[in-house]
Amino acid sequence: MDGVRVIEIKKSVFADNDRDAEALRAELKQRGVYLLNLMSSPGSGKTTTLIRTINLLKDKIRIAVMEADIDSDVDAVKIREATGIPSIQLHTGGMCHLDAEMTRQGLDNIALADADLVVLENVGNLVCPAEFDTGAVCNAMILSVPEGDDKPLKYPLMFSVCDVVVINKMDVLPYFDFDLERCREYVRLRNPKARVIPVCAKTGEGVDAFAAWLLEEVRKWKEE
Amino acid sequence: MDGVRVIEIKKSVFADNDRDAEALRAELKQRGVYLLNLMSSPGSGKTTTLIRTINLLKDKIRIAVMEADIDSDVDAVKIREATGIPSIQLHTGGMCHLDAEMTRQGLDNIALADADLVVLENVGNLVCPAEFDTGAVCNAMILSVPEGDDKPLKYPLMFSVCDVVVINKMDVLPYFDFDLERCREYVRLRNPKARVIPVCAKTGEGVDAFAAWLLEEVRKWKEE
Repeated sequence: MDGVRVIEIKKSVFADNDRDAEALRAELKQRGVYLLNLMSSPGSGKTTTLIRTINLLKDKIRIAVMEADIDSDVDAVKIREATGIPSIQLHTGGMCHLDAEMTRQGLDNIALADADLVVLENVGNLVCPAEFDTGAVCNAMILSVPEGDDKPLKYPLMFSVCDVVVINKMDVLPYFDFDLERCREYVRLRNPKARVIPVCAKTGEGVDAFAAWLLEEVRKWKEE
Repeated sequence: MDGVRVIEIKKSVFADNDRDAEALRAELKQRGVYLLNLMSSPGSGKTTTLIRTINLLKDKIRIAVMEADIDSDVDAVKIREATGIPSIQLHTGGMCHLDAEMTRQGLDNIALADADLVVLENVGNLVCPAEFDTGAVCNAMILSVPEGDDKPLKYPLMFSVCDVVVINKMDVLPYFDFDLERCREYVRLRNPKARVIPVCAKTGEGVDAFAAWLLEEVRKWKEE
């Protein structure tokens, strides 16, 4: 276990998730905390991308991470070991997504007064997490090259709720039939204002662009 | 559309999915139809693997395919064009999985008297589909090398309900930190009797082993 806190998340009792999410967002606004909901398929490189991003930003803003997973705690341990920032593990007990109330249960275990940015790493799944507003200020997703450039066609809701699509594993582009421009077009079909940021989390290439965008977002949120 | 039938699946009204799944399996047994439930993450290569498998088997047994997807029909069209076998598209209307009643709605649109094997390509998702018995005779899943060898640790239920784990995209093994032996161990932790079959669907390498296993399974099911 190595000291990472594991929070067992309970199923929500609230019927109106959208209202609950709005309330959470308003509360976060008041407290000056930016909540980023990071989604992806299993194995797209969410945790590695997050570690790179945190290491670029942790001297500029105060960050905490909530790792949602069905029942392991490897990601929270990995994040803490690689970045030194506070990281907790949320166990969903088999549930395939987090809603606003479940997110709040996680946030209750974070010292929000000491955080400018909280990143929620959602369950690896392109379907269910897209259906539930977590109360986050922004939804971002990671699509990795090996998954294919057609994913915005097949998981339309996920791409329409995300304002940033990070394309990871750009280093293996030569080995896959993945066309970045075609992917950009498909993303635009779902969300014309979505930003597409190609990165290679393994080497760190391109992650600075994502980090710079996120830093700017957090600053705007705190100042507005 | 190009003539592929698209079936809009309705949400089930049955409360007891396990009982419903057992009833469906018994009915399929009586009719001599083997139903394979094929699951995976988005982008793992389910459709490509399936096309290769079907082309190896279609002269030996009669096959039909049900492609479940949230709302596209590209996979059913692709299967039919590449194999010539009957293929229908099931639209789940945003639902993240199929249960036994939803599977039955699909089967109602297939000429079962002309099929020895029906393959259900489930929604791309490692969480929810694992929770619902579809009534299939066997669950199989595809894990692709870029997703990482740790997936059995992170999605335990999926690996425990599958009797076959096909490891796809073996051609890109040199570019990823994926250890096949470690993966076999993790799979065994979840399901000691699971068979692990490494393949490269792109080139076809290894798919003959999966096809041979499936052919044997179908024959046993029909004779037993």
